[in-house]
Amino acid sequence: MNKEEIASWFQELQDSICKNVEKLDGDKEFKEDRWERPGGGGGRSRVIAEGNVIEKGGVNFSAVFGATPEKILKKLNLPKADFYATGISIVLHPQNPYVPIIHMNLRYFEMTNGIYWFGGGIDVTPHYFNPENAKYFHQYLQQTCTRHHHDYYDKYKKWADDYFYIKHRQETRGIGGIFFDQLKENEKLSKEEVFAFVKDIGLAFYPIYQELVNSNKDKKYGENELKWQALRRGRYVEFNLVWDRGTKFGLDTNGRTESILMSLPPMANWVYNHQPREGSSEHEMQQWLKKDINWLKI
Amino acid sequence: MNKEEIASWFQELQDSICKNVEKLDGDKEFKEDRWERPGGGGGRSRVIAEGNVIEKGGVNFSAVFGATPEKILKKLNLPKADFYATGISIVLHPQNPYVPIIHMNLRYFEMTNGIYWFGGGIDVTPHYFNPENAKYFHQYLQQTCTRHHHDYYDKYKKWADDYFYIKHRQETRGIGGIFFDQLKENEKLSKEEVFAFVKDIGLAFYPIYQELVNSNKDKKYGENELKWQALRRGRYVEFNLVWDRGTKFGLDTNGRTESILMSLPPMANWVYNHQPREGSSEHEMQQWLKKDINWLKI
Repeated sequence: MNKEEIASWFQELQDSICKNVEKLDGDKEFKEDRWERPGGGGGRSRVIAEGNVIEKGGVNFSAVFGATPEKILKKLNLPKADFYATGISIVLHPQNPYVPIIHMNLRYFEMTNGIYWFGGGIDVTPHYFNPENAKYFHQYLQQTCTRHHHDYYDKYKKWADDYFYIKHRQETRGIGGIFFDQLKENEKLSKEEVFAFVKDIGLAFYPIYQELVNSNKDKKYGENELKWQALRRGRYVEFNLVWDRGTKFGLDTNGRTESILMSLPPMANWVYNHQPREGSSEHEMQQWLKKDINWLKI
Repeated sequence: MNKEEIASWFQELQDSICKNVEKLDGDKEFKEDRWERPGGGGGRSRVIAEGNVIEKGGVNFSAVFGATPEKILKKLNLPKADFYATGISIVLHPQNPYVPIIHMNLRYFEMTNGIYWFGGGIDVTPHYFNPENAKYFHQYLQQTCTRHHHDYYDKYKKWADDYFYIKHRQETRGIGGIFFDQLKENEKLSKEEVFAFVKDIGLAFYPIYQELVNSNKDKKYGENELKWQALRRGRYVEFNLVWDRGTKFGLDTNGRTESILMSLPPMANWVYNHQPREGSSEHEMQQWLKKDINWLKI
């Protein structure tokens, strides 16, 4: 299994997720932008907007290569080497505030010096709390992880709690999920088996989001719910622009801005010191934005 | 002139600017939040929202003190010392897209080791280009600066071009203004004279914004202009959260989040790869988002 095979698998995943999300949306189709990276490689950005279910979403694939950025070499204390990086990155912002935002990223990185790793994550950001959804999502992840390694769910669920954390708000972005990085062959799994784990996470994306959409998309909402959705989207922007390492790295290293920032929502709002009324559903949601919740047992 | 005198001057400036902005708005008043900093000091945050002219605005004063943050000591290569910092920070987001966003920040910092400096800046972000406004604003700054030092306008105008720059978009935030930092007594000006310069910039704020508001506030606008305003506000968010050193420093050092982020707009929007139509006023605005324009001679 070489880097090209990994890249084509990510590309196929992009195709199948786009096809499925279009079916789920029932109205709009993705539009594709192909782009090239001056230093080597390029990508296929696909966006959907103003659909029936999805207000704004992106499903991006890229495979880029060239001289390894100084920042990475310095961090790893390594001499010059070329790199190859490929991955898929997804963010979907729904129309209906009762449907959560979903994000997934899967990536593979290797250098000519033999170093390689996989990384990735998937997390869900509801605007309104739905305990069945939270349980379903985490159970799905737990089962998927455990098929590959008995401690991956616990370990990567904790990592997601720490990663998807808005430090300056002292709250998590949503109900977490899993996050992993620099994952390579180890005492239990070969490189092929690690890739099989990454693939399984990729294949979990659609059945998970399908359930989150179908169980909420017909719920009625009005001005009040849309206002709250816009405020929560503001927090999503804060996380992505202030804390997300992928976004920061991309913007710092002259990545393709429009592809990196496709994660940003339509219509986000900031209201000074907004506090939802105690006892409201908005207040309830806020109470769940905490680390270390065992979602399997709520 | 000691630190308390500088702080009270900033406080008086806050009072007078708030009173004037309320008159200009003609509808809403500022609401005040007083807050204390656990390490020492505190502030008065004042916000106005959903006014006749101002959709969202903040005029914040603070005076904080305590142990100097490690980050600053390390950067200056200094042993432990206490600090005192006071300043005023303003961002006003107007309702009418033809009225520009304005920002000003003035600050004084000193340490128990005798080190001190003033810093500040004022910049304007129009959604639509108005050459008379741009000229008026820069002329006002040029005259104010030149009363104190013949090269301050050129030097600090260039600094603003570099500072208020959205690197990942390769565009300036707006039509610039002035920016200065670590300004202390020098071969030409005593500490008192530097403070007199800072005061003069502070006093320039209101007459400048009054002109920018009055010359535009009655212009008619519709959905199209509001959509563009929301997109430009998105860029404002990108600058503040990704590049603004003050915001980053505040969020990193556990500043008061709601006061730091009062600068963020109501209703910002992100549309994938939006390009205004050539020949449109939106396209014209975008052409002016460049460094090194001599606004006195446009």
